[in-house]
Amino acid sequence: MNLALGIDIGGTKISYALINQNGEITTEIEKLSTPKTKEEIENLLKNIISKYEAQILFTAIATAGAVNNENTKVIGSTANLAKGYKDIDFQKLSSKKVFIENDANCAAWAEYKIGASKDTNNSIMLTLGTGVGGGIIINNKLLKGKSGAAGEMHFALSRHSKRACTCGAYDCFEAYASGNGLRQTGIEIFNDEDITTYDIVEKARNNNPKAIQTLEIWQNDIALGVLGLLNIFDCDCVVLSGSMEKFVDTKKIEEFVNKKTVTTPTKIYHAKASNNSGMIGAVLLGFDLIN
Amino acid sequence: MNLALGIDIGGTKISYALINQNGEITTEIEKLSTPKTKEEIENLLKNIISKYEAQILFTAIATAGAVNNENTKVIGSTANLAKGYKDIDFQKLSSKKVFIENDANCAAWAEYKIGASKDTNNSIMLTLGTGVGGGIIINNKLLKGKSGAAGEMHFALSRHSKRACTCGAYDCFEAYASGNGLRQTGIEIFNDEDITTYDIVEKARNNNPKAIQTLEIWQNDIALGVLGLLNIFDCDCVVLSGSMEKFVDTKKIEEFVNKKTVTTPTKIYHAKASNNSGMIGAVLLGFDLIN
Repeated sequence: MNLALGIDIGGTKISYALINQNGEITTEIEKLSTPKTKEEIENLLKNIISKYEAQILFTAIATAGAVNNENTKVIGSTANLAKGYKDIDFQKLSSKKVFIENDANCAAWAEYKIGASKDTNNSIMLTLGTGVGGGIIINNKLLKGKSGAAGEMHFALSRHSKRACTCGAYDCFEAYASGNGLRQTGIEIFNDEDITTYDIVEKARNNNPKAIQTLEIWQNDIALGVLGLLNIFDCDCVVLSGSMEKFVDTKKIEEFVNKKTVTTPTKIYHAKASNNSGMIGAVLLGFDLIN
Repeated sequence: MNLALGIDIGGTKISYALINQNGEITTEIEKLSTPKTKEEIENLLKNIISKYEAQILFTAIATAGAVNNENTKVIGSTANLAKGYKDIDFQKLSSKKVFIENDANCAAWAEYKIGASKDTNNSIMLTLGTGVGGGIIINNKLLKGKSGAAGEMHFALSRHSKRACTCGAYDCFEAYASGNGLRQTGIEIFNDEDITTYDIVEKARNNNPKAIQTLEIWQNDIALGVLGLLNIFDCDCVVLSGSMEKFVDTKKIEEFVNKKTVTTPTKIYHAKASNNSGMIGAVLLGFDLIN
């Protein structure tokens, strides 16, 4: 029996599938709406797990929010999930072992085990979506920090409190490098409060100069953040994932950071471990933790 | 025999002393001017080492510049040292083992073993001097990265190429948080190209409002950088060292970052391991590596 149940818990959907120790999904991926209360989430997870429990070694959950160093408890804020979500005792949901880990960390682990950062020792994954997620691997281990919350991409790109970040601070990398960041930059360039990320991408496709400029500024902001991370971590590579990464020219970022770094050159890659890298990474991490 | 020879090689001075495995200096600290050529540096080191070789287990050198992961070779730029310094084969200078490590990393290690970050697992040391040095400890190991050059505090605090940094990029943390950064901020506030760091500190002591404002901006820039590092590393503490750290109010920085962090609260400490933390840390690291 070398199968595990992988579950991805996000603000809108809970997805799950059986996954083997090579990170291959061996069933259809099921998707359900995330329930609105803690109790409903617990019951749903219990039902899912009980269905597969006989066939699996363990359950591995990729979740929104930071997770403790023991991989048992959510410790960070999970604004998009039910009140009390942090208090769920995941181990109680199964008679077999249950591991949990932050979804961005899981995705980074999937890239490291079977994806773009395979065969490296030190890598950083940035998930460019509505926000920016981060997962950092140092000497073949996830960077977790004292409480498990490390890898948050909230470092300032401005000293002048110019753009509020979702975290309550100002001018974080996330506030510029995310999809929302692109939109904010677009609002400034077009002087139009109603412009959307979609509008900007569409207009750029039709060669609108302001839209092209917006995407360039956005990409330069990503490059600036990546340069800082490279100087701090001297990493083998930086992997870009998430819904926005397809709009990034990784070669241009690679050129910029390698020209400017005070450490040594790195590689910038697009993610490879698929849209299900959260649950895949959770399972691959589980196999490493259980051995 | 539990003594080692600790040597600190800087741009202007080479210092050395015998140090035991508790990090205690057991001789007078000798200080010599750093010679101007590679050959003279080699000969000087050879002479120093030969004098003590019979009494020591090994030699440990804290050096300017990044050092490889094997602790044998300088790999980073060392603008203040002789041409060819990077090519010195340090092991050839002694019949006993010779370890080298970057001086900021050594100082961070000294703080971790016997100083302000003792009994923590994850810490960051920032040396605020003419520039800014960094040493990062994760899970009780120095963060070295793929080549050994990790821990460089060159991450941008502005997106607008406002202030050139010594590294060739713009607006790095170092360009604001260093002594030079304080001076640059002072030049802007006083509109006086000739103002020195010393002038600013003196004027602030005499309650000059512009000087006080300059120091406040400088401290806010340090706090902003520390906040970003805390969010990335979720570290137990941040230790401030170097000639400028005495002008920093660590309590104010601690309050700011703990209010703003998306990870968990940290501590900000003044360094404790003395001005000789470079050579002490090198020796303590050597004792860990040789065992």
